[in-house]
Amino acid sequence: MLKFDEQKQLDSVNGALALRKEIESIVDGICNKGYKNICWLGIGGTYASSLQAEVHMKERSAINFFVENAAEYITTGNKRVGKGTVVVISSVTGSTKEMIDGVKKAKEAGAEVIGFVDYPDTELAKMADYLVSYPKNEQLKFFMTADRFMYNAGEFDEYNELYAELDAHLAQGLAEVEKSADELGERLARKHMNDSIHYFVGAGNQYGATYSYAMCYWEEQHWIRTKSIHSAEFFHGMFEIIDRDTAVTVFVGEDSQRELSERVANFLPRICANYNIIDTKDYELKGISEKFRGHLSHLLMRVITSRIDVHLEKLNCHPMEIRRYYRQLDY
Amino acid sequence: MLKFDEQKQLDSVNGALALRKEIESIVDGICNKGYKNICWLGIGGTYASSLQAEVHMKERSAINFFVENAAEYITTGNKRVGKGTVVVISSVTGSTKEMIDGVKKAKEAGAEVIGFVDYPDTELAKMADYLVSYPKNEQLKFFMTADRFMYNAGEFDEYNELYAELDAHLAQGLAEVEKSADELGERLARKHMNDSIHYFVGAGNQYGATYSYAMCYWEEQHWIRTKSIHSAEFFHGMFEIIDRDTAVTVFVGEDSQRELSERVANFLPRICANYNIIDTKDYELKGISEKFRGHLSHLLMRVITSRIDVHLEKLNCHPMEIRRYYRQLDY
Repeated sequence: MLKFDEQKQLDSVNGALALRKEIESIVDGICNKGYKNICWLGIGGTYASSLQAEVHMKERSAINFFVENAAEYITTGNKRVGKGTVVVISSVTGSTKEMIDGVKKAKEAGAEVIGFVDYPDTELAKMADYLVSYPKNEQLKFFMTADRFMYNAGEFDEYNELYAELDAHLAQGLAEVEKSADELGERLARKHMNDSIHYFVGAGNQYGATYSYAMCYWEEQHWIRTKSIHSAEFFHGMFEIIDRDTAVTVFVGEDSQRELSERVANFLPRICANYNIIDTKDYELKGISEKFRGHLSHLLMRVITSRIDVHLEKLNCHPMEIRRYYRQLDY
Repeated sequence: MLKFDEQKQLDSVNGALALRKEIESIVDGICNKGYKNICWLGIGGTYASSLQAEVHMKERSAINFFVENAAEYITTGNKRVGKGTVVVISSVTGSTKEMIDGVKKAKEAGAEVIGFVDYPDTELAKMADYLVSYPKNEQLKFFMTADRFMYNAGEFDEYNELYAELDAHLAQGLAEVEKSADELGERLARKHMNDSIHYFVGAGNQYGATYSYAMCYWEEQHWIRTKSIHSAEFFHGMFEIIDRDTAVTVFVGEDSQRELSERVANFLPRICANYNIIDTKDYELKGISEKFRGHLSHLLMRVITSRIDVHLEKLNCHPMEIRRYYRQLDY
């Protein structure tokens, strides 16, 4: 299978899950001394992951939490960020300018920072009050953090049950999903490799996936134009430009907002003949209880779309590493 | 001038400003008995206006406030909405399904609702605890509400000064902006009437304008494809698909996030030869102090873009009233 190293994938996910002890110790320490609110701070892809953490927490939590875009925070500020605020960030490079400035501002306001930074020797890593350094798996790190905060707040009784299942089955489960999605990935890549624009629609923890898959993968790495739209908003304007040949892909997950995307998926065939529905429900996750699947839909979607990526990259002879402008120019 | 009735515009804005006594009495009553938080609830265009109210309040307020998309609220819920919550909504028709369901749910949770509903005899109007019924000017209504809450919280000392200026000068000022933008409107409409896709970029209180202008006007009313993107996010993926001929319009306002859009405007000429910068700073607003202009940028932008609309409608022989699908089908 193209660009797929099963053992590497298993090790990556299991290694991320093994961070849990470290995360629990950090979060428990914060909860013991008390905190005022949680600010998920991001930009670009990490902003999208923050949106996923936010909708995940909304389902069950009364904790005071919110998302901030780093560039907006730097310019407009947010009076809720201050002493007692826990800022959670993630960064691969540890050098994104807006994130450095945002963290600096939050710390000056009195906030503490939990930093998931892949490289420990970077500026962002050094600014974190609590540093966890391990590559990739950003969403898993964020969800483990959110879950521990909710568990400590008495809002997540199934915490231990969930993570026992994940420790035992998630890595292999995701690898199996990835393998079984390869054919779909190749088919969609072939069908859409020449698209002039492609629409992605999703809701719940799939909205962040929709937003970042469109922008950080198709636009940034494949140089194909996209628009991403929340399923809730689809019927309030955007759908007027869809006709028979418009390329549309709907991400359907299994969390509380599933019905919003199902509504789009059910309607599309009436007005469009060039759509795809990717429904995480069609993929088995052995060993994981039904009730936890909604919790994990975005992780399934990520490994499914990764199969589109590898085929698109090959078919379009467009290595995903290259950038036209990003970090190539001053701006 | 095409489709422009100056007296009607003046009356419309002045009539909206005259709602202030009614709004003050509602907000003062709520503040006197106390409240827990403010929830701006919307969908589609009213969701975009809610985002504008949110960023406007963020600049100066420590009040606990947030935005909810009605469809997301119905499905995922929000534990912060309950007794003591003030939900603020706006609706022209008073019959949008998601809004009716959202308001119902919020009221069941114990919230009180301030409703700006154009038609008083509609379901949404009847559900409002406090009803203000006056056509159009949604953003002005929202900002007057937000400003009064902030004034009562001691966060907006210039309240009386601002509204004295608006009462005296806003309506005429906006009419003058609209007239002076007509030539630009016609030029942009001619230049972009055949676009296969058009990108709109904006930040601050222009982001809601960007999002809704792209979706509720070009997509819904002109049937032209768009993507809207926050200026903060432009450099984090999307800009990779911009080349010489890509149609891009940047909305530059005068609030705290102006620099984010200026950054895009300054960079664009290096990679694109088909862009437009619309900067509210280029338009005079007689009688309005410099310090209040940021506060009003989105109102200026709205009258400026309305001149693009009327010319686009005529040039493309596409009446803005027609819809392909919206309320034409069951979905």
